[in-house]
Amino acid sequence: MSSPLQLYVDARFISPFAMFAFVALHEKSLPFELITVDLAQQAQHAPDYIARSLTNRVPTLSHGDFHLSESSAITEYLDATFPGTDLYPRDIPSRARALQVQAWLRTDLMPLRQERSTDHVFYRTASTMPLSPEASQAKDKLLRIAATLLPAGHDYLFGDWSIADTELALMLNRLVLGGDPVPEHLASYATHQWQRPSVQQWLTLPRPAL
Amino acid sequence: MSSPLQLYVDARFISPFAMFAFVALHEKSLPFELITVDLAQQAQHAPDYIARSLTNRVPTLSHGDFHLSESSAITEYLDATFPGTDLYPRDIPSRARALQVQAWLRTDLMPLRQERSTDHVFYRTASTMPLSPEASQAKDKLLRIAATLLPAGHDYLFGDWSIADTELALMLNRLVLGGDPVPEHLASYATHQWQRPSVQQWLTLPRPAL
Ligand SMILES: [Ca+2]
Ligand SMILES: [Ca+2]
Ligand SMILES: [Ca+2]
Ligand SMILES: [Ca+2]
Repeated sequence: MSSPLQLYVDARFISPFAMFAFVALHEKSLPFELITVDLAQQAQHAPDYIARSLTNRVPTLSHGDFHLSESSAITEYLDATFPGTDLYPRDIPSRARALQVQAWLRTDLMPLRQERSTDHVFYRTASTMPLSPEASQAKDKLLRIAATLLPAGHDYLFGDWSIADTELALMLNRLVLGGDPVPEHLASYATHQWQRPSVQQWLTLPRPAL
Repeated sequence: MSSPLQLYVDARFISPFAMFAFVALHEKSLPFELITVDLAQQAQHAPDYIARSLTNRVPTLSHGDFHLSESSAITEYLDATFPGTDLYPRDIPSRARALQVQAWLRTDLMPLRQERSTDHVFYRTASTMPLSPEASQAKDKLLRIAATLLPAGHDYLFGDWSIADTELALMLNRLVLGGDPVPEHLASYATHQWQRPSVQQWLTLPRPAL
């Protein structure tokens, strides 16, 4: 008997970090219980949840008695623990580059993330406000780095799929799905990534109306 | 002949992330060239540096022709590539917890990080302003989580040293070295971590006057 898996995610299914952990579990073909935490009701501060999450954030993975937060720690844990689709490249430099992309996307581009929320991605709302100078600069940086990492004609960052593709595509889709102009090969990369079955599983979860 | 190592860090030696990569190289007993990037002069935007760093940030590690940014990706890369002191625990759950701590410290507690800058840590300036309510809440969260991860009497998060100890101690030392009250066992943990030779190597680098 293997230990049961539970994944705690936000009740609106709009956290990119919850999505990445969810996609990782699907890529590994692991059965798991999906548990929602209603952030609007401050449910992340309930003592039971704090005891598991430690940091009052989503996602949290429970694997039997082991509870783990932070999506990048979760995806590394799942990759080290379970067979199935590799979440990371196996060669050390490519793996390091994937980790770099993950860490960068979590700690940079804040004005863009604020002005192009995941509502564009998960509710398909069009963006109506032009980007501020700061967000526009972040957009230019994103597009420059994405184009460097992903030359035209490449479907994946590292030969075949890794979780870094889903994460980079999410950032690009803040623009693509919001209707901002994005160079064609990057837009089609992001669109292609969005067709992946594990991603579609997340996209089709029943969201409350905006 | 092994490929030469170069580490690009900020010229004031106050970036915690540059410090963590520096400490990791010292823990592995690796010879490397330390190269400073003068952020005050916008040197991170020089084309040569962008070509290496990709994201215009410090630190960047060059290992021969391979260039890698983001300190947590660098420490994982070094651990996977070189023998010597383990930077991460070897057992999978402890390793995952260390990665959680790293990811959490990079993406949370922002008001505290702003109001208790690394000047307190690296220049030993005393804090003169009381914490705002937001920073105070972040402080309480830090102390709660640190106490959970580190019961009294434990010298390390995971049995013996890992890079997560240096990272957690840095966050605690924003308070301890700035003169804010911190529970005794956490303060002595942070102080003890600061005696580590690899950390002392960073602390004693020649900093320009404030
Ligand atoms: Ca694997
Ligand atoms: Ca692969
Ligand atoms: Ca190792
Ligand atoms: Ca060890």
